[in-house]
Amino acid sequence: MKIKLVITDIDGVWTDGGMYYSSNGVETKKFNTSDSAGVLFLNHNNIPLAIMTSENSVIVTNRAKKLKIKHVFLGVQDKLSCAKELCEKLGISLNEVAFIGDDINDIKLLKSVAYSASPNNAPNYIKREVDLVLKINGGSGAFRNFIEILLVKLNLWEKTKSFFTRD
Amino acid sequence: MKIKLVITDIDGVWTDGGMYYSSNGVETKKFNTSDSAGVLFLNHNNIPLAIMTSENSVIVTNRAKKLKIKHVFLGVQDKLSCAKELCEKLGISLNEVAFIGDDINDIKLLKSVAYSASPNNAPNYIKREVDLVLKINGGSGAFRNFIEILLVKLNLWEKTKSFFTRD
Amino acid sequence: MKIKLVITDIDGVWTDGGMYYSSNGVETKKFNTSDSAGVLFLNHNNIPLAIMTSENSVIVTNRAKKLKIKHVFLGVQDKLSCAKELCEKLGISLNEVAFIGDDINDIKLLKSVAYSASPNNAPNYIKREVDLVLKINGGSGAFRNFIEILLVKLNLWEKTKSFFTRD
Amino acid sequence: MKIKLVITDIDGVWTDGGMYYSSNGVETKKFNTSDSAGVLFLNHNNIPLAIMTSENSVIVTNRAKKLKIKHVFLGVQDKLSCAKELCEKLGISLNEVAFIGDDINDIKLLKSVAYSASPNNAPNYIKREVDLVLKINGGSGAFRNFIEILLVKLNLWEKTKSFFTRD
Repeated sequence: MKIKLVITDIDGVWTDGGMYYSSNGVETKKFNTSDSAGVLFLNHNNIPLAIMTSENSVIVTNRAKKLKIKHVFLGVQDKLSCAKELCEKLGISLNEVAFIGDDINDIKLLKSVAYSASPNNAPNYIKREVDLVLKINGGSGAFRNFIEILLVKLNLWEKTKSFFTRD
Repeated sequence: MKIKLVITDIDGVWTDGGMYYSSNGVETKKFNTSDSAGVLFLNHNNIPLAIMTSENSVIVTNRAKKLKIKHVFLGVQDKLSCAKELCEKLGISLNEVAFIGDDINDIKLLKSVAYSASPNNAPNYIKREVDLVLKINGGSGAFRNFIEILLVKLNLWEKTKSFFTRD
Repeated sequence: MKIKLVITDIDGVWTDGGMYYSSNGVETKKFNTSDSAGVLFLNHNNIPLAIMTSENSVIVTNRAKKLKIKHVFLGVQDKLSCAKELCEKLGISLNEVAFIGDDINDIKLLKSVAYSASPNNAPNYIKREVDLVLKINGGSGAFRNFIEILLVKLNLWEKTKSFFTRD
Repeated sequence: MKIKLVITDIDGVWTDGGMYYSSNGVETKKFNTSDSAGVLFLNHNNIPLAIMTSENSVIVTNRAKKLKIKHVFLGVQDKLSCAKELCEKLGISLNEVAFIGDDINDIKLLKSVAYSASPNNAPNYIKREVDLVLKINGGSGAFRNFIEILLVKLNLWEKTKSFFTRD
């Protein structure tokens, strides 16, 4: 397996699915700083990362900016088509893509990539379709855990871990 | 059993009961995106959904708008009366209604509908009165879980699931 | 045992101890709607309720207003003295007071009242000093649970529950 | 062992790692009032406390002000260097420092101090490097628990606890 692109859903993966609505119209999402290390690990291995979410929120834009993630797709109705277009642009195929998602609008893309994963608290009918069911829930570091396991599979984890935990 | 209307409480069902109060007077509720699939599943089966809550908050209005829920009743003191009026308007009876609630102001309606449910973390003296006690807590996808189980009971789940997880 | 006043701490009892700090200087606390039934149960039995917290925050004032709680003491450095003064004003003694608290600034008052309780997640050296250690954590309905158990002890629960769950 | 300075990370230690992003650009962190007693316990024993975080946020400044913590280092890229400088300023050595952290940017300092700790939910490759793995997660009172265990180790806990729980 060769992975040249990682795609991630946001709600339910980077968050526990929580959507905070305030009486002044403001919306909030709770991310986990633990996942930011997953982004660092990918950068260190020159594997690009793309966010694909059906939500259309400046919240995701801001989090992506903070973590310097270049490929951010908001308001995506058809993630499979969106991924195909991105692959074409990058000159790669879906056979070189890993994707983590957790719900019904992720399922077509989950079935089409080289390596797919879901957090532990995804519905059973989603978990049944993925290569890897994490032991961690969305919002509790599921994305970072996915990246670590992916790098193990790619024989890149030991050197990555050594780099980031060196004296 | 024939269900022509689903009614849902909000606090403690769509949320974990949490009420966030801020020093600037703003209030916040935490919903779960997982429950939004429950709304989609009902729409797909042409079963209307009504929200009934004793709270009177624009927060619920905004969430309902996002999910395109038409029947929204805020500040309801007597849910049984409110449900009866809605049934009359829709030309149906309480024998064709399913309701999920979790606390003392839900109990009369819970006892009066065709199919009643509570999240797992409702008080025992509420859970004792309902047809279905979910294994899931309020705010963790209890509403979606309720809709899935209801659709199973109505022999509508397999075709619904197939539709939403098709290739 | 005769209880003529219930006193409650806020942070760690009505909340999980969480204190949300925002970059715009706003602070937030997360209450639980489940506890509001505890207030109703006390009202129904004409037992007054007082809030005593070392914090000095409009957040607590707002929550108390919503629940129509009359006795609200903010910025309390010495809860025992504050309770003694309130007792004097009400013409009762500490032997007729029940108190729920969870931390070191509650301990003197916990030791001085007729009936004391802590949520399950209080430190062991607090829990060792109280009459009742709840099985529920702060912020998850601990206050309501305390009131229910207190009313059981006072032989008032069955009629209270019947009233609130009647057809 | 003689400890003349305690250093603490913030995200993942004083919080559960959660980073709340709002649609109006505001960011929020959830602290736990339980940890504030840890600060009191250190003050009582005249052991200074320093915060070191790679984040650069007024949120931490505000929390530190509330708890009257003097040494606050924000935007720290190299915690080991920062700690060495502070030690020099205070006329002590790293052999007299205790530090609690939870992630890869903490690891060099964790390996260099006299006594190191991580919350229970730190990654295994961090926990493997510390003297003490707490049973408590970040944001649930891990810092307070660390201070209590540290004071036990320094034979200071019994008199501290007695002071704060005295009649």
